[in-house]
Amino acid sequence: MSGEEAIIQGVLARLSTGHQGALGLKDDAALIAVPPGYELVVTMDAIAAGVHFFADDPPSDVGWKALAVNVSDLIAKGAQPHAYLMSLAFPAAPDPAWLSGFAAGLSQAQRTFGLHLVGGDTDRRPGPLSVTITAMGLVPTGTMVKRGGAQPGDYIFVSGTLGDAALGLQLRAGTRETNAWPLDEPERVALIARYLRPQPRIGLTPALRTYARAAMDISDGLLKDLTRMCALSGVGAAIMAAELPLSSAGANILSADSRAIKSIVAGGDDYEVLAAVAPANVAVFMAAAAGMSVPVTAIGRFAEAGAVTILDSDGQPVTLAHTGYDHF
Amino acid sequence: MSGEEAIIQGVLARLSTGHQGALGLKDDAALIAVPPGYELVVTMDAIAAGVHFFADDPPSDVGWKALAVNVSDLIAKGAQPHAYLMSLAFPAAPDPAWLSGFAAGLSQAQRTFGLHLVGGDTDRRPGPLSVTITAMGLVPTGTMVKRGGAQPGDYIFVSGTLGDAALGLQLRAGTRETNAWPLDEPERVALIARYLRPQPRIGLTPALRTYARAAMDISDGLLKDLTRMCALSGVGAAIMAAELPLSSAGANILSADSRAIKSIVAGGDDYEVLAAVAPANVAVFMAAAAGMSVPVTAIGRFAEAGAVTILDSDGQPVTLAHTGYDHF
Repeated sequence: MSGEEAIIQGVLARLSTGHQGALGLKDDAALIAVPPGYELVVTMDAIAAGVHFFADDPPSDVGWKALAVNVSDLIAKGAQPHAYLMSLAFPAAPDPAWLSGFAAGLSQAQRTFGLHLVGGDTDRRPGPLSVTITAMGLVPTGTMVKRGGAQPGDYIFVSGTLGDAALGLQLRAGTRETNAWPLDEPERVALIARYLRPQPRIGLTPALRTYARAAMDISDGLLKDLTRMCALSGVGAAIMAAELPLSSAGANILSADSRAIKSIVAGGDDYEVLAAVAPANVAVFMAAAAGMSVPVTAIGRFAEAGAVTILDSDGQPVTLAHTGYDHF
Repeated sequence: MSGEEAIIQGVLARLSTGHQGALGLKDDAALIAVPPGYELVVTMDAIAAGVHFFADDPPSDVGWKALAVNVSDLIAKGAQPHAYLMSLAFPAAPDPAWLSGFAAGLSQAQRTFGLHLVGGDTDRRPGPLSVTITAMGLVPTGTMVKRGGAQPGDYIFVSGTLGDAALGLQLRAGTRETNAWPLDEPERVALIARYLRPQPRIGLTPALRTYARAAMDISDGLLKDLTRMCALSGVGAAIMAAELPLSSAGANILSADSRAIKSIVAGGDDYEVLAAVAPANVAVFMAAAAGMSVPVTAIGRFAEAGAVTILDSDGQPVTLAHTGYDHF
């Protein structure tokens, strides 16, 4: 067996067990059967060492993250994760222990989110190790939650807490300002874990499909992603700074260093859900989320066309220089 | 508009025109509707500068190739190409002229093979420019042609001519041995074009679905790919060297340099179809292929379990040291 086939059959094939259409990763393509009355939701995202993760991150975290960032998009669309394909690019023959840890992280994410590996390819090329995944999910026909459906007056909801991954990234990188952050060791660990292991809110999927007029995941920072939703919906938005949901660690940092607000609203890597919910559905949406143990918070309202503004507790606009992450 | 969004909306979005489920590349995911009675066939392949193409290849050829190598897999499975997602990784902000040429090549391939861009992502990272595509096709439920269905006695068919792309690659790279090849300029150009612009046999799709017991595309060289088909089918195979279909340029080279046989049977990048056809279906398969103007050639027969052998005109086995391309 050649090196490429050894990786596929020795390490990856077991990740396909349970999906007949994967054909054991032995064919040129996978077969996806979409049940009558359903449509397929498809998304594609890559992560690369030195850009989206550190080369020395635990390989199981890299595997988890590669899949989770894709599942996050499916969830925000109201889709049930179903299957994924993965293209791996290694600069050198991968270390078996690294590969095994990487596959373990993928396997954990598969069980958590309910999908299987069905295909892909493995290549050797210069440059950083990179993992590109195409993930597929199922929705009842016509129920995919789009980005562009927010209407003036709709409530702006986010799941979980914001900024933790961005703060965790700064801790992971050991930037100078983190020395002054008033954190105990469990808080440090928890923030770094938010960066290493994003936790898409799989439990929110049915509530989004039923009650959200628009949704997307927050991957490039709340402000940038909310601006995108507003642009596509043709609306504006006003956020109440005091309503932004923070972890206790995040709140501690912010109270010690007000500049941390930038990480919280524009830092990226949250992988929480941003949703527009009509006023009449706010109570049922919150109840449905609570029923699935997913914390959700109304942080403001959509408005007639206009900019995205953040208002302080006096109703005055807060100005921020940096509004989100761009790859170019 | 940021750099990433400028690339997507300024250059790529027009490639999605015609597929409603692409949502103008403005959402987090694409929506694929699979008609009742159909299944989705999905494949994923990447190409990278310096590995699968030369950094100075014309950008339109790079775009064409990135899509064609994926469509090749769909065709070999009997699937009608439908949609694709694309993940681009650039080491630096891409030159607008390069991007425009690249999109033009994709657009030509889209029209030729009948599919649209529906999603993906664009990233900046060190390393070679790379293009990763996930392509999706449709087959009537239960008709996907698999790799593992060949039976002893089935005829081994290949489409087109073999080795041209591998010989073209040597010409493109200017290797020393090519100096002695007896080629006129049109032949040189034609061989290089086979490397730059693979031509998957879209016309063969219905014939494969109806008459092939097994099929795959030839991307890593006939011998390696036939060995894979045999292994999965639990059969052996004997090829007649004299029956291997060669272009006139390929035949000229082989007559001048017998070592060229390695490029022809093990060189890779053919993107022709390898198929197993039961004896009773040989005539109808050939007629169906001729009806679609796709040349097909029976090059041997599958046998009871055993190795893949190449026989010379005296029925004696030919030995070859190198049996195919592996990335590791």
